[in-house]
Amino acid sequence: MPKTLPFDPIAEARRHWEHRWGPEPGPSMAAVTSIMRAQQLLLAHLNEALRHHGLTFPRYEALMLLLFSSNGSLPLGKIGDRLQVHPTSVTSIVDGLEADGFVRRVPHETDRRTTLAEITRAGRDAAETATTELNRAAFFTEPLRAGELDRLTVVIGKVRQAAGDF
Amino acid sequence: MPKTLPFDPIAEARRHWEHRWGPEPGPSMAAVTSIMRAQQLLLAHLNEALRHHGLTFPRYEALMLLLFSSNGSLPLGKIGDRLQVHPTSVTSIVDGLEADGFVRRVPHETDRRTTLAEITRAGRDAAETATTELNRAAFFTEPLRAGELDRLTVVIGKVRQAAGDF
Repeated sequence: MPKTLPFDPIAEARRHWEHRWGPEPGPSMAAVTSIMRAQQLLLAHLNEALRHHGLTFPRYEALMLLLFSSNGSLPLGKIGDRLQVHPTSVTSIVDGLEADGFVRRVPHETDRRTTLAEITRAGRDAAETATTELNRAAFFTEPLRAGELDRLTVVIGKVRQAAGDF
Repeated sequence: MPKTLPFDPIAEARRHWEHRWGPEPGPSMAAVTSIMRAQQLLLAHLNEALRHHGLTFPRYEALMLLLFSSNGSLPLGKIGDRLQVHPTSVTSIVDGLEADGFVRRVPHETDRRTTLAEITRAGRDAAETATTELNRAAFFTEPLRAGELDRLTVVIGKVRQAAGDF
């Protein structure tokens, strides 16, 4: 887990920024750096919580995608597009899940060049128990309440849309 | 750059989530997943913009930290603590910056076991020109305005503080 700092490093960076480049770029620099740092911290907490379920956060995300898919299986390429990860990372994520028996690779019924990842019974169980734990921990967002979280989702949704997410 | 999806994958995940686990965990799951996806997208844009300055976002962050330090130099361990990165990653970040002539490693004046990274003239120039470009692009946060960005920073600040950032 990263060290806790005795001061807010983003507020400090912002003071330097505004001193040198004026007030205008301050809000966007601070917001983007906040997203970056929050992501690193949340990822550390999520990976820590998922470890004793045999999962990492990227593997958990792939498993949830398969759990919610209509047939319990998806082409590897589609998993990459949905999770914004490179084909080589999808391969390594699916390798890890397959080694733990959470998914198996199966050929596509009609297109033999396409490989599907299919969630197994053990994969469904791991997805369920891991989710129960993350839900109970509110994904490490305490003390934020539902209203604040939803406003966060809406505002970040604008950033995501502007950045070409959907 | 990741592919643009024809729908919001987080809204879809949330529908599945609430169908299966009820409304309670929806807001925290959606907010955390939003932070994760926004980070991936922003990082892709930032890396793309920084590439022709010979930088990546992690190298840029380290360079800015040195630029703002009182002597233009910091111990490698302190860089890691400030940027929440592992010692091995600090080594690789500083290796990259050193290979491009943006920093040099120098021994600490009094404690010979400590190595400092010191920003060079070329490093200062790269930091300045890269920042001018990122400031002009508002760190890829358009169309958000200053007020929204500042509210985002405040709310994410609560998440960061709860997660042990500062």
